[in-house]
Amino acid sequence: MKTVKFLLVGAMLMSATSFAEAGAATWIWYPGDYEILMANNMQNRRTERGAFYPPFWRMDSHYVLVEFFKTVDLAADEEVEIYAEGQYNVKLDGRLQFGKLDRLNIPAGRHRLNIKVYNQSAVPAIFVRGKTVVSDTSWLVTFKDTDWIDMSGKASDKSMAIFVNVGSWSFSDAQVAPSQFSLPTTPKAAAVTERGESSVLVDFGQETFGFLKLHGMKGKGNLSVYYGESREEALDTAGCETLDRIYIDHSQPEDFVMSASRAFRYASIVADGTLLFDNVSMLYEYMPEEYRGAFRCSDEELNRIWDVSAYTLQLSTREFFIDGIKRDRWIWSGDAYQSFLMSYYLFFDAPSVTRTLYALRGKDPITSHINTIMDYTFYWFMGVYDYYLFTGDERFVRQMYPRMESLMAYVLGRRNANGMLEGLSGDWVFVDWAEFAMSKKGELSFEQLLFCRSLEVMSVCAGIAGYGESAAGYAVLSQELRQKLFDGFWSNEKNAFVHNRENGRQSSQVTPYANIFAVLLGYLSAEQTQAVKQSVLLNPNALKITTPYMRFYELEALCALGEQEHVLKEMKSYWGGMLKLGATSFWEKYDPRESGAQHLAMYGRPYGRSLCHAWGASPLYLLGKYYMGVQPLKPGYGEFCIKPNLGGLQWIEGKVPTAGGDIAVYADAKTIKVTADAGQGFLYFSSAKKPKTNIGVVEKVGGNEYRLLISEPKKQYVVSYLKIQ
Amino acid sequence: MKTVKFLLVGAMLMSATSFAEAGAATWIWYPGDYEILMANNMQNRRTERGAFYPPFWRMDSHYVLVEFFKTVDLAADEEVEIYAEGQYNVKLDGRLQFGKLDRLNIPAGRHRLNIKVYNQSAVPAIFVRGKTVVSDTSWLVTFKDTDWIDMSGKASDKSMAIFVNVGSWSFSDAQVAPSQFSLPTTPKAAAVTERGESSVLVDFGQETFGFLKLHGMKGKGNLSVYYGESREEALDTAGCETLDRIYIDHSQPEDFVMSASRAFRYASIVADGTLLFDNVSMLYEYMPEEYRGAFRCSDEELNRIWDVSAYTLQLSTREFFIDGIKRDRWIWSGDAYQSFLMSYYLFFDAPSVTRTLYALRGKDPITSHINTIMDYTFYWFMGVYDYYLFTGDERFVRQMYPRMESLMAYVLGRRNANGMLEGLSGDWVFVDWAEFAMSKKGELSFEQLLFCRSLEVMSVCAGIAGYGESAAGYAVLSQELRQKLFDGFWSNEKNAFVHNRENGRQSSQVTPYANIFAVLLGYLSAEQTQAVKQSVLLNPNALKITTPYMRFYELEALCALGEQEHVLKEMKSYWGGMLKLGATSFWEKYDPRESGAQHLAMYGRPYGRSLCHAWGASPLYLLGKYYMGVQPLKPGYGEFCIKPNLGGLQWIEGKVPTAGGDIAVYADAKTIKVTADAGQGFLYFSSAKKPKTNIGVVEKVGGNEYRLLISEPKKQYVVSYLKIQ
Repeated sequence: MKTVKFLLVGAMLMSATSFAEAGAATWIWYPGDYEILMANNMQNRRTERGAFYPPFWRMDSHYVLVEFFKTVDLAADEEVEIYAEGQYNVKLDGRLQFGKLDRLNIPAGRHRLNIKVYNQSAVPAIFVRGKTVVSDTSWLVTFKDTDWIDMSGKASDKSMAIFVNVGSWSFSDAQVAPSQFSLPTTPKAAAVTERGESSVLVDFGQETFGFLKLHGMKGKGNLSVYYGESREEALDTAGCETLDRIYIDHSQPEDFVMSASRAFRYASIVADGTLLFDNVSMLYEYMPEEYRGAFRCSDEELNRIWDVSAYTLQLSTREFFIDGIKRDRWIWSGDAYQSFLMSYYLFFDAPSVTRTLYALRGKDPITSHINTIMDYTFYWFMGVYDYYLFTGDERFVRQMYPRMESLMAYVLGRRNANGMLEGLSGDWVFVDWAEFAMSKKGELSFEQLLFCRSLEVMSVCAGIAGYGESAAGYAVLSQELRQKLFDGFWSNEKNAFVHNRENGRQSSQVTPYANIFAVLLGYLSAEQTQAVKQSVLLNPNALKITTPYMRFYELEALCALGEQEHVLKEMKSYWGGMLKLGATSFWEKYDPRESGAQHLAMYGRPYGRSLCHAWGASPLYLLGKYYMGVQPLKPGYGEFCIKPNLGGLQWIEGKVPTAGGDIAVYADAKTIKVTADAGQGFLYFSSAKKPKTNIGVVEKVGGNEYRLLISEPKKQYVVSYLKIQ
Repeated sequence: MKTVKFLLVGAMLMSATSFAEAGAATWIWYPGDYEILMANNMQNRRTERGAFYPPFWRMDSHYVLVEFFKTVDLAADEEVEIYAEGQYNVKLDGRLQFGKLDRLNIPAGRHRLNIKVYNQSAVPAIFVRGKTVVSDTSWLVTFKDTDWIDMSGKASDKSMAIFVNVGSWSFSDAQVAPSQFSLPTTPKAAAVTERGESSVLVDFGQETFGFLKLHGMKGKGNLSVYYGESREEALDTAGCETLDRIYIDHSQPEDFVMSASRAFRYASIVADGTLLFDNVSMLYEYMPEEYRGAFRCSDEELNRIWDVSAYTLQLSTREFFIDGIKRDRWIWSGDAYQSFLMSYYLFFDAPSVTRTLYALRGKDPITSHINTIMDYTFYWFMGVYDYYLFTGDERFVRQMYPRMESLMAYVLGRRNANGMLEGLSGDWVFVDWAEFAMSKKGELSFEQLLFCRSLEVMSVCAGIAGYGESAAGYAVLSQELRQKLFDGFWSNEKNAFVHNRENGRQSSQVTPYANIFAVLLGYLSAEQTQAVKQSVLLNPNALKITTPYMRFYELEALCALGEQEHVLKEMKSYWGGMLKLGATSFWEKYDPRESGAQHLAMYGRPYGRSLCHAWGASPLYLLGKYYMGVQPLKPGYGEFCIKPNLGGLQWIEGKVPTAGGDIAVYADAKTIKVTADAGQGFLYFSSAKKPKTNIGVVEKVGGNEYRLLISEPKKQYVVSYLKIQ
């Protein structure tokens, strides 16, 4: 039974990485509600040594009673099928329908169709299918209802302002309701099985995720499974992070699948009593994702880094983009923000981004920052903007805008007398896991910088949502804050932003954070940019970043400044360092100065460190954006930019997925080849000689700099040039 | 099985009308959450001719993840049992506990106990029982969690400000979790069964509520049940408001209970195919309430009015105080407000009041008035105050205060430039079902008056909750509004408040509403009061009220002005009029000018009128407060006032329940007898001769007015006097 369901759901999910098209019948719901409930479900699966370990922040719920609405205009009478998750009623032209409601006859002409659904434990959802009337993304929905009747029974008119566009995903089968969803699984054998005196140790050969399965189980007794991302962890039954314990009698099948999915490479299985089993395998549980992005180059270590990064992102892309697969399995906004960016260069899975953004945002009223972390609130805003830039999905921006506005109102309400943010009661000011002493007190330059960027995002999105006055207001706020940022934190002495200001006094500490983001966001003058590059980014005496999380931005900033050769060495050293230690996925934290089991510890626990952490996969993003050099310039890749950079490699080759197709890039010292399925943009490159092209005309843009307009879809542009040594 | 459960729940509910005592183990939850979920469940049971008919307003949900907290101080080690509805974890002194959690050993000494529970579909709740450690009303709970850890694994301290007092009811059995609750039932036979050719009509002799039961069912076919509060309705299969249709094969038991509970006196049962049954009975479903109040007098019709009022209130007191039992079965704030007041004179069921207040208030953010009705928001505030006055429950006021504050913030945010409220988009300005043309436009004097009273309530409650500054602020707002009320609406020409003001222009229409409430709230000078009494209340040409709903306040105002004889005649005429028409419960609307089936119609539907409507039971309140004359002067009846008034009767006798026991009153023209179980207060009366008493000393307070201090608990005070003719 279970397998059948998984297969069904798996099949249904073949298109899970793109949205249902308008005009195609799909299950629809109140936007964000399905996402919030699924996130509750997923995030509450965390355990620590068997103990339930729920998230730290408020969990929200769906609207339990919602009303769907559509105006239809029919050339002929039509019978529509109606499916719903929950109790429901149907109104046609405002009149309640009686009797059976799963088939409704709608006469020719223009009609108003309302379907009201109540569901306390699952998300109210409908699926409607007729010849022309289908539940698609053009439907509207509301949780409000200002319907009332007067004593004569006359209903008041309902204001259309209470309706919003429905949410949906990829549930196109009327028979498979959204609440039935679970990720598909596939069987996987163990690579090595070691049978000890009182236990069995299995090794699946690489980091993996899923349900352990015991075959040929006989007898009775306690079954204990100790999971390990490392061999050490699985064998340390008193110290491993995750375990399962169950008493086996004869009520279980001989081939027994554990009920909880876990992250592991190793599992140590201990049975007592008369309990015996033949062998151990697993059901690998995964989100079906297509690797639309690709990368190969002349350096095999870098290829391996890309592959392991891709696998790391695949594993930590589940119902949502989660932090890591062993421990939290939660949606952390700062982590997810990076997954979004990486995912644009691998899966281009738009629904996973919007699902994650909805889950993070939750419902009003806002009673804390996202994940309780101030910086994570800002990454959320930035994530909305990036999503818009990469996909061009204005509908989503309009749909999300009210929630952006209320979140920003919360932020604005917490400003101090200087109009800046400092940590108030209940705020977690995170920034990064740093080894050095970092003050979280007063106004942090890093937080104001992200705040400033978030205000810019608000301005853009208010414009898209049609609130011109708000757009202008947010623009003013961001400009004012940007000025304060320089007045308050820029130090001419340090040639950088200082870390913070307490009681109006600038500290003397320079940390990388604000400086990195100032470069990335283009907030600095050319002179300031060079100053920061020297004083912070390339300064061997600057404070060291030891998390792949913040290395993401540090290396991106260096790439943005043209330091691809330097970054390539860093990637080989840092990510290559993990590979040399046997990593099969990238870690939450890596410090080359540590050794042995030190690499496994974190948070004061011997195996506290996650060895498969999404933020470890940033080479995907760096290689796609700064080596293959592909990025959108206008929303949805309407205009793109391709700026290949070998960074010291002999050749690179790969693909970057976009909203309209793929962009393929090949580059070596003499040839650049580019094919774009859709959109248009320029290929930028330098050349020591006058370049040639098979299509179009190469323009000189100054010195040795050239550009070529790529505008013919699916045609391969081949450029002969000579790389400047 | 079902019967057993009902019996269990019934037994558990023996104390449902009072709260669990501190120190006694009880199921606890986040305050309001159980109430909100139960209200969703109840209110979504409405159907119209079989079609699902959910409420008009937003339905909220519980917090799905909450954390309970208690500091314990133990003289000796103690083992506690832990029960939870939902997945949970336990922390002792901040340390997560592993392994089995249903028994926890707590060592002697002072310890912090945290239990975190997740439940999506039911309310997270716990039950803890040890020798001294029990889950009682002293526990705290939060939906927030600002817990986080640093890289070393150290947890941050949690601010106690995020915690609030838990909610509870009467669930004292660890084995019966709150989600299992349903109202008990008891079998009831039909009074008359008429077998027709193709149908059977059963009459249960009086209005009732529950599950119809068919005995000795045989064969197969469609079973249709048409319910009627009247014989006409049950027989009008095409027009009755509620019906059930089910196909009967052999999957149902021979003695078959319908799945939905309905309101009816009559039921017409139609079976086709080979379907046959022997006879019909029902399971009467009820809220176990004790009639603590009592009333008897020399007028049998009035006694019958009191009895039918009590039964009407009993029927419409279910999981919550609902409007009526046939149609909506929803919690309407204006209706509930009256049920609260009536209930203080019959059941004194404090938990039913707080449950209803919580359910009405729902959750933030506020997106509409309560039930979408402006006046109903204000009745809610007034209901909180009355609850405090009658019960003295300050804990509830403190617990509810944040929700009072956010609701008032919503109201204040909707004021116009004059600082007054007028109906905005989405607001239903109800006032009353009136037969005359009543403008709902501009500023209605009635709405401002209730708004002013609500601000006074806010001021009192802010004081109780410890927000002195807010208390002062609300006091200023209410004083300002009161002045505006007189400036804007009082007409010296009309000797009354006019109905409304549009664009700053006073209308010339005088309606009873604002004038009635101005009398009740004591807003008028002695002179203005007499003016209103003559120009509105006793004016035969004034606009007529035709709902028992607004008659409640009209008659109360007359009683407050000493017009008990007049009101008694009105009661006999109005409620007696319904009895003469065969009413076995009181109606939503009664207009003596109507006849026959006109009495059944409303909302443009032939049987739209509810024949058992809570607001029809107001004689309970009038007779208790203004004839037996008992009312609290200080919160929780700490001080009371007893002012019997025969209102033209030869004698009255009865009991009024209070927070501390009962107050029994007997009065005829020569003797008054009073016994109070607790508290103290004065008995007030007039006498044509010098009165005598068996206990204490009668004081003369002027003219023929006397008073006697009632201060000895449970002693009967007997006063000889002579009623002034």
